[in-house]
Amino acid sequence: MTVSLPFPCNRLLPVIAILLAFCVSAAAQQSPPASAGPPDPKLVEDLVAAYRILADHNLLDGWGHVSVRHDKNPNRYLMARGMSADMVTAKDIIEFDLDSRPVDTHGLPMSALFTERYIHGEIYKRRPDVVAVVHTHAPSLIPFGDTKVPLKPMYHRAAFIAFGVPVFEIRDCAGMTDMLIRNAKLGQCLAQALGDHPAVLMRGHGAAITAPTLQRVVARTIFLSLDASLQAEAMKLGAPINYLDLEEAKLIEAREGHGLARTWEGWKQKVMPKP
Amino acid sequence: MTVSLPFPCNRLLPVIAILLAFCVSAAAQQSPPASAGPPDPKLVEDLVAAYRILADHNLLDGWGHVSVRHDKNPNRYLMARGMSADMVTAKDIIEFDLDSRPVDTHGLPMSALFTERYIHGEIYKRRPDVVAVVHTHAPSLIPFGDTKVPLKPMYHRAAFIAFGVPVFEIRDCAGMTDMLIRNAKLGQCLAQALGDHPAVLMRGHGAAITAPTLQRVVARTIFLSLDASLQAEAMKLGAPINYLDLEEAKLIEAREGHGLARTWEGWKQKVMPKP
Amino acid sequence: MTVSLPFPCNRLLPVIAILLAFCVSAAAQQSPPASAGPPDPKLVEDLVAAYRILADHNLLDGWGHVSVRHDKNPNRYLMARGMSADMVTAKDIIEFDLDSRPVDTHGLPMSALFTERYIHGEIYKRRPDVVAVVHTHAPSLIPFGDTKVPLKPMYHRAAFIAFGVPVFEIRDCAGMTDMLIRNAKLGQCLAQALGDHPAVLMRGHGAAITAPTLQRVVARTIFLSLDASLQAEAMKLGAPINYLDLEEAKLIEAREGHGLARTWEGWKQKVMPKP
Amino acid sequence: MTVSLPFPCNRLLPVIAILLAFCVSAAAQQSPPASAGPPDPKLVEDLVAAYRILADHNLLDGWGHVSVRHDKNPNRYLMARGMSADMVTAKDIIEFDLDSRPVDTHGLPMSALFTERYIHGEIYKRRPDVVAVVHTHAPSLIPFGDTKVPLKPMYHRAAFIAFGVPVFEIRDCAGMTDMLIRNAKLGQCLAQALGDHPAVLMRGHGAAITAPTLQRVVARTIFLSLDASLQAEAMKLGAPINYLDLEEAKLIEAREGHGLARTWEGWKQKVMPKP
Repeated sequence: MTVSLPFPCNRLLPVIAILLAFCVSAAAQQSPPASAGPPDPKLVEDLVAAYRILADHNLLDGWGHVSVRHDKNPNRYLMARGMSADMVTAKDIIEFDLDSRPVDTHGLPMSALFTERYIHGEIYKRRPDVVAVVHTHAPSLIPFGDTKVPLKPMYHRAAFIAFGVPVFEIRDCAGMTDMLIRNAKLGQCLAQALGDHPAVLMRGHGAAITAPTLQRVVARTIFLSLDASLQAEAMKLGAPINYLDLEEAKLIEAREGHGLARTWEGWKQKVMPKP
Repeated sequence: MTVSLPFPCNRLLPVIAILLAFCVSAAAQQSPPASAGPPDPKLVEDLVAAYRILADHNLLDGWGHVSVRHDKNPNRYLMARGMSADMVTAKDIIEFDLDSRPVDTHGLPMSALFTERYIHGEIYKRRPDVVAVVHTHAPSLIPFGDTKVPLKPMYHRAAFIAFGVPVFEIRDCAGMTDMLIRNAKLGQCLAQALGDHPAVLMRGHGAAITAPTLQRVVARTIFLSLDASLQAEAMKLGAPINYLDLEEAKLIEAREGHGLARTWEGWKQKVMPKP
Repeated sequence: MTVSLPFPCNRLLPVIAILLAFCVSAAAQQSPPASAGPPDPKLVEDLVAAYRILADHNLLDGWGHVSVRHDKNPNRYLMARGMSADMVTAKDIIEFDLDSRPVDTHGLPMSALFTERYIHGEIYKRRPDVVAVVHTHAPSLIPFGDTKVPLKPMYHRAAFIAFGVPVFEIRDCAGMTDMLIRNAKLGQCLAQALGDHPAVLMRGHGAAITAPTLQRVVARTIFLSLDASLQAEAMKLGAPINYLDLEEAKLIEAREGHGLARTWEGWKQKVMPKP
Repeated sequence: MTVSLPFPCNRLLPVIAILLAFCVSAAAQQSPPASAGPPDPKLVEDLVAAYRILADHNLLDGWGHVSVRHDKNPNRYLMARGMSADMVTAKDIIEFDLDSRPVDTHGLPMSALFTERYIHGEIYKRRPDVVAVVHTHAPSLIPFGDTKVPLKPMYHRAAFIAFGVPVFEIRDCAGMTDMLIRNAKLGQCLAQALGDHPAVLMRGHGAAITAPTLQRVVARTIFLSLDASLQAEAMKLGAPINYLDLEEAKLIEAREGHGLARTWEGWKQKVMPKP
């Protein structure tokens, strides 16, 4: 069926269509994404603990962050507003969609959010298996990111390193930058460099670390950082190093998390405010 | 004398014997070993302090452990349930036989015990002179375990290193594993690698350390870890190292423990809960 | 017009002129410089926090100091009296002119001021762009000052190192000394060695660090010190190091300070006395 | 004059003389030395602070010690009973003569005193200029004592190293020992190795450090230990090191102590029990 429109309708229609598309798109961008509903309070408590535990280990300060997927919707994740990790409380946790748009900023301006939240959103998009992400500036990792000396598993609690920890070179994605993952495109490049690995170093910057649970991403951050120190020390001894075998790493990862709950209690009781 | 049994007895007897042996063995495994009775409360207090002192020195976290032989029966030892070392209290101490079976789990499931308790039981079996055992993941020891650079005595408080600290390679015992000493056989291999030495490094994992008293096993853990750092530093200076002589080590060990009681009080008062 | 003076005036005039000049100069030296008025209390609070934050990071002890230009007059700066950095309070802050003469010593003798205040005054004189100065004995910087191995930017929070961190050799200015910047001439030599750079190492001594804000000079001190540790570690790995590019550094510095306010809150709440 | 004694006196006299000498000597050894009277309470308070400050810097534990000459008699010195440094209070301070015999043990057995007090007594005997002595097991010093790599002044607060820090080899004095300075003879050998230097390293053990004041011996201990770390780090950078010149060291030592009082207040307020 062909509809013949009288003048001036036939001329205006394309213009109207473009205007409409623009307005719908702008509205979509301005209206916040829908919430997945209130997350499990236990998950929020553990996320707060994660910030404080990593701060207590000198692995987060005012610039790093940790997130976890929402327990009611894998297309949402939870993360603190931009703030010092050792001060995070439950009311500072904000819900984001996977484009890293906040569901509700609690009245804060967008500038009060972590600029680099795209690290989290883009990794969650690309890696359905990942439930929690850390972005850290852990000092022991930076010499490895800057030299590209490959990180290797020295210690069984860091066995996952056997699955590979590549280095992300931001220049390959965007040339000269201010080094921050400040938009979706940079987040996608980082997620691509991560690939199927558990973690990725970021040259001149730090690392992004993933895991299938929140407690494990905290443990992986602690032990990735420790392993880098151990490897640096071992390299200075000047003798061949007997790293963990890939087969050992697989067997360790198959049972990993065992015993973590008790360690988590120990870490947590040191950092949570006393009632 | 030959006894001739009527049919079907002559055929059933072997079956009955096998069934009986199975049931006795199963009963033995299921019924807990007998208790040696309540241990000296001072010993329990010192064991609690040992966990907390080693945690305070960053030598135990949620995964390492310390044990001591029961003062009323050398075939029993005392050790905490599986938990973070800095949180251990007297009521968390559990009694084990030398097969590492708990006398009483205080109502906890077996999974709430340290998986690697076999390190302790199998060393106590093989080494009647050993009264206390530590299993630690001390960071400074791991580069030496992974490179097999021999640990040497740099400092008189770690003179016992002169008696040798071998490296245990779990692959020689059981091929590819998840690295944990999770059964008696692995514990026996480790105890064999320890031999008559005061301590043994575990490749990719940590160390097991022994002593004739609880206070000395704590001191040995602290100073073995310190000595490894000192040796690594000295090796980097690039000059020949003048280690302690074996004769000096023997003279030191003959008086060792002298002065330890006062240091123990200092260590302890920092970590025990204030009344 | 020529004025002919009767004897003895014509002979005494030059003597009188010299005496007058001497007296005016002595009076100027003895009378304290005028105050710029009370500084913004928020600035004073942040200056107190700066001392305590740097002490908490082990970057100031009883000998280092931090100063900031007076918010009401760029020819005055504010600095603590000579004291341990972790004990500074608002009432310990003293106002100086750019010759480093105190406006009011609060009744203290001159010997109760920091001898090396000339570091600050002479840098403020030479560098109108500088708003805050730190003098630190940060341990990680000293090996670089003593070897003249150039500091390089390893980590984006220390990107300003790309603009150059020269080494000041006090022997070039004054031969053999007790190493202290104890007068204006030595301060001028140091300011000259600093040139247009953000910081200068002082051989056998420490460093002077500048920034366009008080919060940034604290952050620069923390991250200059961290970067030195990272570079030393990376150099020991024995592989080529991929430092930040000058272009990256420029882009980073253009946005630097972003996010610093939240980290400042975290640093500050740990060190300020609780009400 | 010759006196002719009747028999049996002429035969017994030599025996009597020997017996008398023995008894006098035994009495001298058993009767405690006379006290110099109560020391200045401020000196005692500073000595208590010295123990706690050095413990807070991880330079004393249950085994090291610090002493100061009695302010009323240079032939007496003050030192804590054998105990953990962080627990010392005024009532634990004991007075010794220069043979390291206690004036009054406060009812304690001799075994409750530090075995190695001879380090202090023998140095005070040989060095009238020394007013305070520290014996430390500072970890950063041990690699230098074991390798004989000479310590050099990297940092102006440790300028006194330019006057030489020799290494004491106990084997040269007494062959194979348990390494402790457990008698006057070993103390004399150590004092001889010290010579006119400000400090002496003890191979496999630690160091003895001297100064003309109590506050300076604490500062020298802290900065000797720091300088050793700095030198080790600088040596790893692989470039020539520009140490302090002897002339600079002399100028620094001539003013040293300036500013120390304020740092002392900072160190002290962190460690003294709050009223």
